[in-house]
Amino acid sequence: MTLSNVGPTLVLGGARSGKSGFAERLVEGSGLSMHYVATGRAFDEEMRDRIVHHQAARQGKGWTTHEEPLDLVGLLSHIDAPEHAVLVDCLTLWVTNLMMEGRDMAAEFATLAAFLPGARARLVFVSNEVGLGIVPENRMAREFRDHAGRLHQIVAEKSAEVYFVAAGLPLKMKG
Amino acid sequence: MTLSNVGPTLVLGGARSGKSGFAERLVEGSGLSMHYVATGRAFDEEMRDRIVHHQAARQGKGWTTHEEPLDLVGLLSHIDAPEHAVLVDCLTLWVTNLMMEGRDMAAEFATLAAFLPGARARLVFVSNEVGLGIVPENRMAREFRDHAGRLHQIVAEKSAEVYFVAAGLPLKMKG
Amino acid sequence: MTLSNVGPTLVLGGARSGKSGFAERLVEGSGLSMHYVATGRAFDEEMRDRIVHHQAARQGKGWTTHEEPLDLVGLLSHIDAPEHAVLVDCLTLWVTNLMMEGRDMAAEFATLAAFLPGARARLVFVSNEVGLGIVPENRMAREFRDHAGRLHQIVAEKSAEVYFVAAGLPLKMKG
Repeated sequence: MTLSNVGPTLVLGGARSGKSGFAERLVEGSGLSMHYVATGRAFDEEMRDRIVHHQAARQGKGWTTHEEPLDLVGLLSHIDAPEHAVLVDCLTLWVTNLMMEGRDMAAEFATLAAFLPGARARLVFVSNEVGLGIVPENRMAREFRDHAGRLHQIVAEKSAEVYFVAAGLPLKMKG
Repeated sequence: MTLSNVGPTLVLGGARSGKSGFAERLVEGSGLSMHYVATGRAFDEEMRDRIVHHQAARQGKGWTTHEEPLDLVGLLSHIDAPEHAVLVDCLTLWVTNLMMEGRDMAAEFATLAAFLPGARARLVFVSNEVGLGIVPENRMAREFRDHAGRLHQIVAEKSAEVYFVAAGLPLKMKG
Repeated sequence: MTLSNVGPTLVLGGARSGKSGFAERLVEGSGLSMHYVATGRAFDEEMRDRIVHHQAARQGKGWTTHEEPLDLVGLLSHIDAPEHAVLVDCLTLWVTNLMMEGRDMAAEFATLAAFLPGARARLVFVSNEVGLGIVPENRMAREFRDHAGRLHQIVAEKSAEVYFVAAGLPLKMKG
């Protein structure tokens, strides 16, 4: 598997499916300058420790890490250059953060959709598929999976390649 | 992708996966008289508004809408003609309605299974895959996903084509 | 579909996806001596009845049933011979049992991983994909799906063939 050079790549998968590892290998095989965009926010000490640990591991392999919970397009614009490969991990945490801030989800998604076709960096988006279980009883969880599903359709439509990862194995859905 | 002319089509997918949109495009590309069978019941004003809105949108494209929460085979028999393409959206809501009425699920599924091989209309069934999350704590939810899973196996076995849709992208499982 | 003769087979799927039936057919078509390893424990009379019923059905088709909730590798070692086809149903129940006993999950998984490459019997592992729904609110459930996901990646990596089953239909992910 090699990283697409004609448009963004979307990597979907479940919890502990190996989706992030697969996406990292795509980027590491590209020969480009490697950028990791973490959308997650540390809510406690343990999570902060884990983030620092992962960041150090990536740094040893030549990655630059960026943390951006909300203004994803702003950050991507800032590092948008053809010699860059950029891994965004992950879209579902971005959706969570936007919801917590009460943002206009449709507007945020439209801004990302408008940015993608002209992006010059090679972009890889990782996201959790969360819509294949029972309808959640929690209303916030239902809204979250609706937003995530809509965003996946939008990003998939603008992507050159889409993978679904299960048990560490990629299945090509598009490209 | 074109609509199968040798047997039913089953379109499975998660919440907001784009499965209904994909199924609608299959039917709209068939050149046949288009029928939409809605199995969902409006439980409140908001849902009623949404249903009316979608129905009007489909009507503008030439669809006839039928609402049938329970007697699915009765309705399908009534509109069963080779010049008709019929989209049933969705099987999981039908399962919900049958359970709420205390119906004999195995008997209902057997009636549908017996109808399918002789159907003359081109049938497309949309359904939610709901069995890929954690076992639900709620007993009713566990029974629901067992019924849905059994029904999917039955309909897939009688179908000429089966698709799994994620992020708006169809993956052919059969046909 | 025929049973791989170069390494283990992993069959993943959701609840009532038809994964166990597919795995049984793989083994039944192999012409080998058939062994069924049940990892589930009966918690009540009803479950005990169901287990006895399934066991009798398999026995009629020539299967030998083994029950082993914890020491999976011990049992597999005991029946490890090239003329045996062994179906383990399922890995997710094994994970549940190990967690309930407070075992060291990483050590247990490493023991299985070390056993697989040298196994002489033809092994088929069935497991539930549980990571494609909303993040569970229950901490134990989150840990369970993390463990299950990690185990799936480990077993898939050591397997010659991996299938994902939905609606009774197998999709080959590897092999």
